Amino acid sequence: MGVDGTDITYIGPVPGEDELASYDEVIDCRGRAIMPGLVNTHGHAAMTLLRGYADDLPLQTWLEEKMWPLEARFTAKQVSAGTALAVAEMIKSGTTCFVDMYDHMDEVAKITMESGMRARLCRGSIGLCSEEEQKQKLNEAVQFAKDWNGQADGRITTMLAPHAPYTCSPDYIRQFVEKAAELSLPLHTHMSETAKEVEQNVRDYGVRPVEHLRRLGFFDQPALVAHAVHVTDEEIDILASYDVKVAHNPESNLKLGSGIAPIPKMLEKGIRPGLATDGAASNNNLDLFEEMHIAAMIHKGAHENSVLVPAMTALKMATLYGAECAFLEKETGSLEVGKKADFVVLDLSGPHMQPLHDVVSHIVYSANRNDVLDVYIDGKPVMRNRELLTLDEEKIKFEANRAIQEIL
Amino acid sequence: MGVDGTDITYIGPVPGEDELASYDEVIDCRGRAIMPGLVNTHGHAAMTLLRGYADDLPLQTWLEEKMWPLEARFTAKQVSAGTALAVAEMIKSGTTCFVDMYDHMDEVAKITMESGMRARLCRGSIGLCSEEEQKQKLNEAVQFAKDWNGQADGRITTMLAPHAPYTCSPDYIRQFVEKAAELSLPLHTHMSETAKEVEQNVRDYGVRPVEHLRRLGFFDQPALVAHAVHVTDEEIDILASYDVKVAHNPESNLKLGSGIAPIPKMLEKGIRPGLATDGAASNNNLDLFEEMHIAAMIHKGAHENSVLVPAMTALKMATLYGAECAFLEKETGSLEVGKKADFVVLDLSGPHMQPLHDVVSHIVYSANRNDVLDVYIDGKPVMRNRELLTLDEEKIKFEANRAIQEIL
Repeated sequence: MGVDGTDITYIGPVPGEDELASYDEVIDCRGRAIMPGLVNTHGHAAMTLLRGYADDLPLQTWLEEKMWPLEARFTAKQVSAGTALAVAEMIKSGTTCFVDMYDHMDEVAKITMESGMRARLCRGSIGLCSEEEQKQKLNEAVQFAKDWNGQADGRITTMLAPHAPYTCSPDYIRQFVEKAAELSLPLHTHMSETAKEVEQNVRDYGVRPVEHLRRLGFFDQPALVAHAVHVTDEEIDILASYDVKVAHNPESNLKLGSGIAPIPKMLEKGIRPGLATDGAASNNNLDLFEEMHIAAMIHKGAHENSVLVPAMTALKMATLYGAECAFLEKETGSLEVGKKADFVVLDLSGPHMQPLHDVVSHIVYSANRNDVLDVYIDGKPVMRNRELLTLDEEKIKFEANRAIQEIL
Repeated sequence: MGVDGTDITYIGPVPGEDELASYDEVIDCRGRAIMPGLVNTHGHAAMTLLRGYADDLPLQTWLEEKMWPLEARFTAKQVSAGTALAVAEMIKSGTTCFVDMYDHMDEVAKITMESGMRARLCRGSIGLCSEEEQKQKLNEAVQFAKDWNGQADGRITTMLAPHAPYTCSPDYIRQFVEKAAELSLPLHTHMSETAKEVEQNVRDYGVRPVEHLRRLGFFDQPALVAHAVHVTDEEIDILASYDVKVAHNPESNLKLGSGIAPIPKMLEKGIRPGLATDGAASNNNLDLFEEMHIAAMIHKGAHENSVLVPAMTALKMATLYGAECAFLEKETGSLEVGKKADFVVLDLSGPHMQPLHDVVSHIVYSANRNDVLDVYIDGKPVMRNRELLTLDEEKIKFEANRAIQEIL
């Protein structure tokens, strides 16, 4: 593979000495695998500060008594510290691009810029507040989206995100849809994560969330929905017909007891779901190797069918399909000439990688994040031999601990 | 924690200088966690050679066209090389004790002896052969069990194992039960892994596998059953009343499409299941951190109930309950004065371990095998700073690759 500046310019056999001499640097990756960088299609990076703060509780108790009260104390400082910790963790597990939906997004964008990461960012707006506050959040979301779209040499792109149909009124969602159309930006939201919120949607609006969002014009824009655990066959048909992107969060959905999304059915209908970690409080790490592993296993087990979601499909969900979910498939998600050089160099020498019958099988079923040696984004190394190059890991860990201590 | 020879002799606050001076060596573990070594309660170590050789196939195709033909070519050499690779991998992921059921078990015992591992070993006998061959296998199993029980300073113990009710006739199983009683050894078998084998049991014998084994006297001896995926509430009651041990193999059960074992129900009824990887061909690694992680998540997701199998329960399943499944709870499975010093020193410094709200949560939900720094078994270090001390990792990897190449 040849890289010129930010782009992949060559894929093929090792060229001759003369050709090699034209490169500034030649890196010998024999005995290693080069694979596309992983794409995390849904998350809340700053929630790393809440990792392990509360587990194994009923969902509402966890959310209302543990997460929300502490998150309410988050200032820009917590978001900055938590996001830096998240980005460090993501790079160390081979992630080169992430979708983030949170508050104080300027901080997230700054960390993204400094770290060298690629990201699709949005200010997530919960509409459970006065009309004035709603308006302020929308304005903030729009301002952020305008300010940062295309920044950091194009590594940062943005979108608009009403938090969820159960936290935003139809009218509020419609305002986001209109703004997204006006600014030609994609939309992102949580959808049908739990059975309970689907019931509530039916009770409040007479239809299930997919039809609800469809009627609000949400799917007339490029749209990414996170979770889609509780969707019927008919809803999957609608999502497929509108080319709606789906972020599959297998670990978060398991840990919170939300359920198991009907991914095999979505694949059958032509939807290409990406993988995601969600926030660290419901995971509890940001490791897409784990998500790949579990995505390849869980549907086989749940349906008692060992051919579902084969290894190659799980790998694509973590890479190419993920890039599609972030609306960045022209830039990233696969190793192709013309795309950005976002890639991972993987160690194949561990005992768990022997014998090397099948590299894809090993990546999905046996590897883990520590097999990631080097990470390149936009043609630049951000980690080499597991050492972060753009971020000060010790300082980040120290500041993350301090930031959470200050609000506990 | 103080260790004298093979035993834990002290648990408590750091003693004074004088007391410390009486130890030959003092190891500072500040900023690290010391936890019991993990116990792998069911596996076929030598199958590491088949890792990634075939995946994502229907179970019968995988078994009959891929696994069995290649396993038939296994000699003592393949078993030795595959087991050494497995033991290296297990130590590197914090496992200090394993249950193994395979063929050429003398080789497995020798590797166990050399490596310093603790193990409960048995020759697994498939009865789908002539009466003469059956007899030979039984004799081999008994001879192995006699020869090796209590060897390697007691680190090796044995048991007897008819492979499964669907591969062994009732009469053949009864012969194992009689021998186990005669030798006062536990019994081990595969049970109710797939819906299909349960149906077959009902068709062939008129009862489901639990009642079938009960009638054969299998549960009158201390008994460990692997899988127990397809068991009814009534069957769980029987297992509980006979104090039958259960090896839960979450990843293997998912990957092979076998299903999800009713672990929450078992826990409710007082069964304390251990965790297991099964063979590497259906996993595809031997990492009990992954099994812990998935055991804590999968039942929450499958039952849409986020309080099931809390982190501490998953940790106990991988340690104390595992030791009980191996009938070695007097020796290992927890850090208590009087037990053998089988323990793991865990790094807490990674970005994925910050902030340190809850160590148990982090071990189960966020850590991975690479956080294991040091491993001690029977009071002796077998890995320090991720370097194996009793095994030559490079040689093992080379020989494993050579051993499989020779029979492909």
